Amino acid sequence: MGNIDTKSVNAIRILAADAVQKANSGHPGLPLGSAAMAYELWAKHMNHNPKNPQWANRDRFVLSGGHGSTLLYSLLHLFGYGDLSIDDMANFRQDGSLTPGHPEYGHTVGVEATTGPLGAGMGMAVGMAMAEAHLAAVFNKDDFKVVDHYTFVLGGDGCMMEGISSEAFSLAGTLGLGKLIVLYDSNKISIEGSTDIAFTEDVKKRFEAFGFQTLVVEDGNNLEEIGKAIEEAKADTTRPTMITVKTQIGYGCPAKMGKASAHGEPLGADNIEALKDFLEWPSKEPFYVPQDVYDNYKAIADANSKVEENWNQQFAAYSEKYPNMRDLWDKYYDKNAADQLIDDEEFWKYEEKADATRNLSGVMINRIKDRLPNFVGGSADLAPSNKTNMKDAGDFSKNNYAGRNLHFGVRELAMTAISNGLMLHGGLQAYVATFFVFSDYVKPMARLSSLMGLPLTFVLTHDSIGVGEDGPTHEPIEQLAMLRALPNFSAFRPADATETAAAWFYAITNKKTPTALALTRQNLPQLAGSSKEALRGGYVIADSTKETPDAIIMASGSEVSLSIDAKEALAKEGIDVRVVSMPCMDVFEQQSAEYKEFVLPKAVRKRVAVEALSDFGWGKYVGLDGAYVTMKGFGASAPADVLFKKFGFTVENVVNTVKGIM
Amino acid sequence: MGNIDTKSVNAIRILAADAVQKANSGHPGLPLGSAAMAYELWAKHMNHNPKNPQWANRDRFVLSGGHGSTLLYSLLHLFGYGDLSIDDMANFRQDGSLTPGHPEYGHTVGVEATTGPLGAGMGMAVGMAMAEAHLAAVFNKDDFKVVDHYTFVLGGDGCMMEGISSEAFSLAGTLGLGKLIVLYDSNKISIEGSTDIAFTEDVKKRFEAFGFQTLVVEDGNNLEEIGKAIEEAKADTTRPTMITVKTQIGYGCPAKMGKASAHGEPLGADNIEALKDFLEWPSKEPFYVPQDVYDNYKAIADANSKVEENWNQQFAAYSEKYPNMRDLWDKYYDKNAADQLIDDEEFWKYEEKADATRNLSGVMINRIKDRLPNFVGGSADLAPSNKTNMKDAGDFSKNNYAGRNLHFGVRELAMTAISNGLMLHGGLQAYVATFFVFSDYVKPMARLSSLMGLPLTFVLTHDSIGVGEDGPTHEPIEQLAMLRALPNFSAFRPADATETAAAWFYAITNKKTPTALALTRQNLPQLAGSSKEALRGGYVIADSTKETPDAIIMASGSEVSLSIDAKEALAKEGIDVRVVSMPCMDVFEQQSAEYKEFVLPKAVRKRVAVEALSDFGWGKYVGLDGAYVTMKGFGASAPADVLFKKFGFTVENVVNTVKGIM
Repeated sequence: MGNIDTKSVNAIRILAADAVQKANSGHPGLPLGSAAMAYELWAKHMNHNPKNPQWANRDRFVLSGGHGSTLLYSLLHLFGYGDLSIDDMANFRQDGSLTPGHPEYGHTVGVEATTGPLGAGMGMAVGMAMAEAHLAAVFNKDDFKVVDHYTFVLGGDGCMMEGISSEAFSLAGTLGLGKLIVLYDSNKISIEGSTDIAFTEDVKKRFEAFGFQTLVVEDGNNLEEIGKAIEEAKADTTRPTMITVKTQIGYGCPAKMGKASAHGEPLGADNIEALKDFLEWPSKEPFYVPQDVYDNYKAIADANSKVEENWNQQFAAYSEKYPNMRDLWDKYYDKNAADQLIDDEEFWKYEEKADATRNLSGVMINRIKDRLPNFVGGSADLAPSNKTNMKDAGDFSKNNYAGRNLHFGVRELAMTAISNGLMLHGGLQAYVATFFVFSDYVKPMARLSSLMGLPLTFVLTHDSIGVGEDGPTHEPIEQLAMLRALPNFSAFRPADATETAAAWFYAITNKKTPTALALTRQNLPQLAGSSKEALRGGYVIADSTKETPDAIIMASGSEVSLSIDAKEALAKEGIDVRVVSMPCMDVFEQQSAEYKEFVLPKAVRKRVAVEALSDFGWGKYVGLDGAYVTMKGFGASAPADVLFKKFGFTVENVVNTVKGIM
Repeated sequence: MGNIDTKSVNAIRILAADAVQKANSGHPGLPLGSAAMAYELWAKHMNHNPKNPQWANRDRFVLSGGHGSTLLYSLLHLFGYGDLSIDDMANFRQDGSLTPGHPEYGHTVGVEATTGPLGAGMGMAVGMAMAEAHLAAVFNKDDFKVVDHYTFVLGGDGCMMEGISSEAFSLAGTLGLGKLIVLYDSNKISIEGSTDIAFTEDVKKRFEAFGFQTLVVEDGNNLEEIGKAIEEAKADTTRPTMITVKTQIGYGCPAKMGKASAHGEPLGADNIEALKDFLEWPSKEPFYVPQDVYDNYKAIADANSKVEENWNQQFAAYSEKYPNMRDLWDKYYDKNAADQLIDDEEFWKYEEKADATRNLSGVMINRIKDRLPNFVGGSADLAPSNKTNMKDAGDFSKNNYAGRNLHFGVRELAMTAISNGLMLHGGLQAYVATFFVFSDYVKPMARLSSLMGLPLTFVLTHDSIGVGEDGPTHEPIEQLAMLRALPNFSAFRPADATETAAAWFYAITNKKTPTALALTRQNLPQLAGSSKEALRGGYVIADSTKETPDAIIMASGSEVSLSIDAKEALAKEGIDVRVVSMPCMDVFEQQSAEYKEFVLPKAVRKRVAVEALSDFGWGKYVGLDGAYVTMKGFGASAPADVLFKKFGFTVENVVNTVKGIM
């Protein structure tokens, strides 16, 4: 059985294998292979307090290979996190359990990030390390480093193959994130077989190219060797470190170790028995853990709680000595800080002139910057176009971690994962930016923002064929439908300054939902009828004089003013229509049935949707008797005004479309 | 002015700068900086015949930095491709011109791929090189290499930052694609400024890690040095080569060279003048090209046409000597080869038993394999789950380029770009595969498939909460809406073996539209009413006995059998409904108004959509008086049958929903 450390490592293996076996579903390969490095890290090198998983200065740990969730659940159970009991281990992957198939942030105490899509955790860890660097630069004093922790991330070959990890680690190297430590569980096996079939690159050398310190642990079961590497990694705080830990997938299961078959299916009863023999486990009873193992984990947990106690004492002293810093700290961690802006006249003010909503958003970003000190963000190399630069807020770089403008490079996917990490860390409110059409690249990680309930903001400019000359590769068509369809995500397309301010207010006051702003490149007029009602997602912006309008035109963004012009032209022909501005379908859907009926009365069946994007998704409001002025296919390359005419976004065409259904 | 080569290089610069200036929009920085390498390559090292841009054995050239389109247009004009005239250069970025903002495949003769989204061209080039390797392995004989060409791709820092390039090149290195040559236009400038702010990695070393030969050209204007590097690259046919060509963005424009401001806006009239002075251009007249420059390009083009003539002669001899090979060649290049399968009974046959549509798709893939020799494809490391392996068709690898099963590794985005490249090359019909939820990763490149009109097939298994225990990170919700919203893309979700066969038939016979198949992990019953009518996208699968049904239930995939069960239960309560199977909304939309009215008569307003996915997009059929049995949010981790009950996919709930609107 070995000494207590070996037994403690094997307890992880046993619980993981038993859990997968009981569920008859899951991934035993990763936990069996990487139990040793995980134990060594959590037991000997990580500052964490199982009794207070929310401790601000804890070291962060992300399991990027989320399919190996039983590794994490075993650690959480053994260390006594939350109330993750042995019954939860036995209820792995069952409805309502604390142990879903992949780790879920906000669902299970101690899970720092939802993982499963490979590579995502790598990006989020980079974001956490950036958050630590930024907060340290803001808050630390010579006599006390309030913020001073490491971020660890564990992932395998799959995580390394995904492009997001190259994007994220290239940036991590540039930024010299010395407190980021990557544990690469290198077992040379992927689902289709040996990694040789698709992945013979020299991963270590790639990380050297990124500017990482690179270390190798030849025997992934050698705790001493692993511990030495982790300490070496911690010692170099000028560069991030990647430790290649050579492991055997499914270690301990004689029939499967080192094979692809160990990855994603239960070992089988016979193999479980063989595993327990191989590890000299004292009992064949499922989920059996010897008391001395529990005692060992408890002793470590108790010792760790003292680390936090010490920090708490120093933080109290810091708060007394630097009361302004303590006030600032509280502001950073106040999730309701933006709520009061609803009555801040300076926040909402605008000029009566035509402007592009991307510019108006740029104004809002700078107003928020002045009001929320923890507001940080940036673009995937398009800040001058996205208008996302915060004036005099500094650029976040290796030489200035206090900078609030982030430069992500041309890396939309990693940008989003990283910013999820910034939000997960705590203390920061983040935004990201790119062209709207490139929300396609952002989507996989925006889905994780939604799933985790992180109120990250997405600034997506160049929101239609209004892009003009750059042509169809740069003109969004179906992207708004894509974002509207995503659960727990609010996609705004504001029509003027007031609606842009409302979208931003919604974004920074929302606690559990990410928000996107789709913004124009071209100027839009300031509308007479726009108001904070935009916060309801949809509202009457120009009404019919009749109690029951002859028809309703529904539009968003740049097509609202067009629709109002069409309403006026129709009035001259005796057709009396209502115009509904729909800046955010997602938010409108959440309104009461009464309000929705008030805005879109069922009695009015003559309805036209006007939006210079795909019609997909408008049907629920247009119904079977309405019509569309929308894009039927991709855009084209020409000046914007030419394209709007070419594709029918003219008063004449809207008028004719309404008349066509009367 | 320099010698004729220098003048010919500068002609590219002049045309590019003048075109952007005239359009008052565009990107002069790249063409000015990389004109020399592009000229040297096209003039001295590339086998291409401007008089026959479709020559099968031409070297391929992809401009991955598509924003530098005037570089490509200038080359096409000067070499006399198609009818790209000097007027087209002057109509850059105007409606209907041959010179849109970014290069568009199928629109402008000589453009091998639509580019613009950075890094995409890198992936497509890898695919073209794989196609070359495969076709060479199939067709080449000792006495004549029918297929023997290089693939060149030119891109800059942005392309290198995007994760897709790491994914694609890591695979290219693994596969030893010795005839792939990457020209890295390294100018150290990105839109937000110096690349130092986000990209200090050692790119050359990264490529070494991937297994590339790496070369450096210190002076990007030195034609001799560039030529030497290209020849060195060509000489090593065991490894792909990456040539770092150090350039100055905006070279020749004294006020802007080396600056971010040269990237994406016109130089301005004064700077154009200064550019022409700097380059000692003989005239200030816009779009002026000296006759000796045209003569030089023409001489090269004429010489090149002889290269093809020579190939044609050898190919004729080959055809005579190896008539079977010539027949096979014609089959590979016959885009109508699959059409006859409509009457192939063996193709359509099925067993009367419940099965998962992923399995049924696997059967179809193997039937197609036997019928279409040029059918190749694979998965992003999920072949055993996606059921995409072609039996006895070999694995494509460094040691066996004749293999038809492709192993992409965990790289969904590059997989799709690469497969676009396989299709663009010509001669092959490709499919890709991953979990449906990971179509999120695929999307940016699937959009390019649609835009380019490439009939690539996407096999997307695990198509709903039927995924079960893996939980919400692995359960698609909004992905079908995302794909349905994409223009020129057909997303099928078949309900049984017959519909799966129909979806595959549609996929391989379509000439201009990519097709996706969303397939179940769980077993579905073979349906009595299913038929080739599925090729219409939507059809009546179980009808009401009344001429006008009491209600219509619309469903796809796994929910069709549920809907038929609900119909039977409703019949017992005297409610007589029609069930419409909607395997593909996109195709149904293309049917005649009469057919659509026949399937979904407007008179029937009581309509219920049943689909274990987001309701987004169903509104156009459900209207204002219908109802939904769909997912309202994300899924959960539990056995599939538990989840279907939990989320209301039961006969009881469908029945009650129908009754609720009666």
